[in-house]
Amino acid sequence: MPLAAVRRGEILESVHRGRLVVADAAGEVLRFAGDPDGYVCLRSAAKPIQALPTVFTGAAGAYALTGEELAVTCASHGGEPRHVAAVRSILKKAGLSERHLRCGGHPPLHAPSARDLFRSGGEPSAVHDNCSGKHAGMLLACVHNGWDVGSYRSPDHPLQRLVLRTVARCCGAKPEEVRIGVDGCGVPVFALPLRGLAAGFARLATGNGLPEDLAEAAARVRAAMRAHPFMVAGTGRLDTEVMRAADLISKGGAEGVLAVGSPEGWGLAVKVSDGAGRAAGPAAAAALAEMGVKLPRTGALSPGITNRSGEVVGALEILF
Amino acid sequence: MPLAAVRRGEILESVHRGRLVVADAAGEVLRFAGDPDGYVCLRSAAKPIQALPTVFTGAAGAYALTGEELAVTCASHGGEPRHVAAVRSILKKAGLSERHLRCGGHPPLHAPSARDLFRSGGEPSAVHDNCSGKHAGMLLACVHNGWDVGSYRSPDHPLQRLVLRTVARCCGAKPEEVRIGVDGCGVPVFALPLRGLAAGFARLATGNGLPEDLAEAAARVRAAMRAHPFMVAGTGRLDTEVMRAADLISKGGAEGVLAVGSPEGWGLAVKVSDGAGRAAGPAAAAALAEMGVKLPRTGALSPGITNRSGEVVGALEILF
Repeated sequence: MPLAAVRRGEILESVHRGRLVVADAAGEVLRFAGDPDGYVCLRSAAKPIQALPTVFTGAAGAYALTGEELAVTCASHGGEPRHVAAVRSILKKAGLSERHLRCGGHPPLHAPSARDLFRSGGEPSAVHDNCSGKHAGMLLACVHNGWDVGSYRSPDHPLQRLVLRTVARCCGAKPEEVRIGVDGCGVPVFALPLRGLAAGFARLATGNGLPEDLAEAAARVRAAMRAHPFMVAGTGRLDTEVMRAADLISKGGAEGVLAVGSPEGWGLAVKVSDGAGRAAGPAAAAALAEMGVKLPRTGALSPGITNRSGEVVGALEILF
Repeated sequence: MPLAAVRRGEILESVHRGRLVVADAAGEVLRFAGDPDGYVCLRSAAKPIQALPTVFTGAAGAYALTGEELAVTCASHGGEPRHVAAVRSILKKAGLSERHLRCGGHPPLHAPSARDLFRSGGEPSAVHDNCSGKHAGMLLACVHNGWDVGSYRSPDHPLQRLVLRTVARCCGAKPEEVRIGVDGCGVPVFALPLRGLAAGFARLATGNGLPEDLAEAAARVRAAMRAHPFMVAGTGRLDTEVMRAADLISKGGAEGVLAVGSPEGWGLAVKVSDGAGRAAGPAAAAALAEMGVKLPRTGALSPGITNRSGEVVGALEILF
């Protein structure tokens, strides 16, 4: 269904369609727009769940991960110096180095950090990849559990099999109901009904509905995300701004995915059908307002569209 | 209507809707998918038309613009050194400097050129803006015609009024049917029925259906684009690859717009409803195949989706 319109002056320029679901920790759908049972490819919205095995297998405790380090294992980070330092610290604790990261690599998403890297004669490497924290956390889990570190991206690797089972348990799906692809960073990516993602974030945010091992790990992960929102994304980024403005956990993913969990016991999942990230935040903000959570409409949540001289020339309008 | 699906392994991840029209120089619709009469905001697909006044007012001739320079006035260029040099040359011929450009500014779209700029201690400026060639051409027309160069972006400026009339004449619309907004670079942007854009490119590509002054200017503009496809976009970019591969003129625009003109007397216009550029090229390639034009499915026209390690993990599938 139509979620948002992009207006340029009086011109209706583009339209984003999509789906939203609010569900509780029991998996009950509280509100929805579009088909709540339709599948969504979780992309990076799964990262806080993918981080759970690093905690419940004992790796995070054994290697004394700090809150900042645990938060960056849940991140799509901007490659800012603090992000890069935290990733390097995790690798050092694991006795590994950047060459063990197999996430690919790209210039820091944070443009000034990319500029500074080039200015100093540096080259973007795997540690700047927005997924490097997730990969470092996965590698730490492999080291702690005695699993092979060279093949950690393979769907058949014991860690990835454990991640799949964890995603299924957290989101209330059977493992065979979860569809698997390959994410932009090379590890398995998961698809399941949108209502499952919403319920999963209700559980992550409260522990309700989770077995004891997952509930304890979820408590540590959400505490880290809440205490260090900068580490989950970065300067001017949506997740960081949402978590700074409200008592929520928030994790976006590529292709217009956003998942939010509230300590009040509900989760919100958004999928923009065409994959446009720009519509996910404003659509989520509108849905969160209906749930009684007011977010500032500034920065990453601003509906304004500006030209390159900074003049406002249009707006993104919510349609649902 | 659905144009393309984004698949990630066996997961259907995202879907792009949109419209396509093929029309001839008389404005007759030959083929269509979706509503051909619905409006489209032309964005940068209008640039070859916006360049016509620089030619038919005599500015291009009086200042002896080269083919490369005329091509860059039609460009959404990558900010590569040859693009920047051509823009600076136009400004020099006009007796102006970079500070007269009011397009804003952003790092070169061509990532290695952006990296080299930062490495050398440079800062992105207006001349690197992908629209700087268009602005330089507009400034040249102002100087030649004795119009104010400080206010050239204003919809009331004699140049912009002339551009509006030219867009309307070329696309077969009445000026009052053309809706106006502000483009990303600050000059007026135009919206009109999609069939008009297709017909306009049929006329640009042939001169058929144009009054003599526009037909002569169109001949010069298309010759420049055909002779210098690199100057219209750049390394690895869609318009450049299309024009190198086939006897067409091609100009894309922001928000999923693409217009193509054939010397056989037809034009194709594509609008991806959600604004996604990634679907415009493959959709156009499929429509062009039906018109007997085969394009290589490599580079910017490849349907493959890769992860950051370069592995193919999905594909964009045409649905119409």
